[in-house]
Amino acid sequence: MTAIELYQQIVCKKSFLCVGLDSDIKKIPKHIANESEPIFVFNKSIIDATAAYAVAYKPNLAFYEAQGVAGWIQLEKTVKYIRQHYPELFMIADAKRGDIGNTSSLYAEAFFEKMNFDAVTLSPYMGRDTVLPFLKYPLKWAILLALTSNESATDFETLSTENGKKLYETVLEKSKEWGTVDNTMYVVGATQAAMLADIRKIIPNHFLLVPGVGAQGGSLEDVAKYGMNEQCGLLVNSSREIIFADSSENFAQAAGMKAKELQQKMEKLLFKI
Amino acid sequence: MTAIELYQQIVCKKSFLCVGLDSDIKKIPKHIANESEPIFVFNKSIIDATAAYAVAYKPNLAFYEAQGVAGWIQLEKTVKYIRQHYPELFMIADAKRGDIGNTSSLYAEAFFEKMNFDAVTLSPYMGRDTVLPFLKYPLKWAILLALTSNESATDFETLSTENGKKLYETVLEKSKEWGTVDNTMYVVGATQAAMLADIRKIIPNHFLLVPGVGAQGGSLEDVAKYGMNEQCGLLVNSSREIIFADSSENFAQAAGMKAKELQQKMEKLLFKI
Repeated sequence: MTAIELYQQIVCKKSFLCVGLDSDIKKIPKHIANESEPIFVFNKSIIDATAAYAVAYKPNLAFYEAQGVAGWIQLEKTVKYIRQHYPELFMIADAKRGDIGNTSSLYAEAFFEKMNFDAVTLSPYMGRDTVLPFLKYPLKWAILLALTSNESATDFETLSTENGKKLYETVLEKSKEWGTVDNTMYVVGATQAAMLADIRKIIPNHFLLVPGVGAQGGSLEDVAKYGMNEQCGLLVNSSREIIFADSSENFAQAAGMKAKELQQKMEKLLFKI
Repeated sequence: MTAIELYQQIVCKKSFLCVGLDSDIKKIPKHIANESEPIFVFNKSIIDATAAYAVAYKPNLAFYEAQGVAGWIQLEKTVKYIRQHYPELFMIADAKRGDIGNTSSLYAEAFFEKMNFDAVTLSPYMGRDTVLPFLKYPLKWAILLALTSNESATDFETLSTENGKKLYETVLEKSKEWGTVDNTMYVVGATQAAMLADIRKIIPNHFLLVPGVGAQGGSLEDVAKYGMNEQCGLLVNSSREIIFADSSENFAQAAGMKAKELQQKMEKLLFKI
């Protein structure tokens, strides 16, 4: 998918919502916990209930790997289900991988070939070697961690480096030269919304994947105010707030309502209503 | 496993060798490529042939994930096989994970509970949140990327940060306070051997996991000269050079000979013969 195609989908759906499929087995409603594949059953219901309001889905790999082989099977089935029923959706593997070149090539194979994801999140620590193998795939994306929403983002990400630039700014400056606005995005936490204005000076045209709205306390309005560009340029992720909105038999309906609520807020911000 | 127990094993085996199970399906000898579980069959032979000369094994997750569910199954079987037949070995999941706290807890669950690894490699980019959940497990280890052996380590790892310290030095300084010498190790590439002397000034007593000897060009003698401490303090990894030493039906024997060759070099360095 190109950036313009993603933007077109955002306009059509009037939404820049990414639903985080952090499908924690411990939080899945009890009435489906005894299914043979509870995470997949849960995901299908969540996807069906929210797909009208979202442009992207982002399974966080940790929640699948914690279930071992069974988790990996359910992840593959989730991706296939979306591809079959909602082919327009942008699929992000939130894997935060990062390794030397020959190993990164294998990760790219895992997520782009073995599973048909559109994008993978990557840690930039080891430099360009970790990113370039992902950029070789046409229409696929690398999403680099820049400034994250967690408390200890200040341990290293905001350290001052050469020329007085913070580490995450140096990550943006250097890595924007490795790819294009059609294959590179950045993770910028919603809890850091005020810093989005400065980030937009470095990368005015790239898409940003923004977690941290909702459960982690970030404001959607601030993210739009400081981060939106002429082609939206934002995918705002919400996970727990949507998928665990309710733990009863109405969990999917509740998730759908929560997603719709966010979509309606996004519509206003998109079209300046 | 504690640091002293690991050291005792090093003394008994006269080796600080870690065998990297980068079991690339494309490089596995042809005569086993048609097995239903070729990676597991390959790994078993490699392990049996090299276990006498090694103290640790390190599957790199990328090579298993690239095979999807089948790869994950063979990874689990490999860990179980080692646990059953060689319980003394130190098992490292080379996963280079790193995420916010609640997600890192799930990764810890995946590698320490679902699979019985002793240690996981982690990327420090997002700070302490990504590391602390792993340190809650008694006798388990977090292995943080510090200074890696790849060319683009200079993109960010060696950037000057506050107080003139390089990023990897700041990673060492900060993170050594999060855990102890009994639950934290660091990845330092063998191609950076001369920098080991400076690294030892910051972390004199921690174990270092050192990749890059052999195929990547690092020298074992230099690593020992600059990095060894009174309790060895080194696990030197070799992957391709051992496991793909030969592609014929004698591949395991060749791997064993290569591992033995490295063990004999290590014995001399350990006991200053």
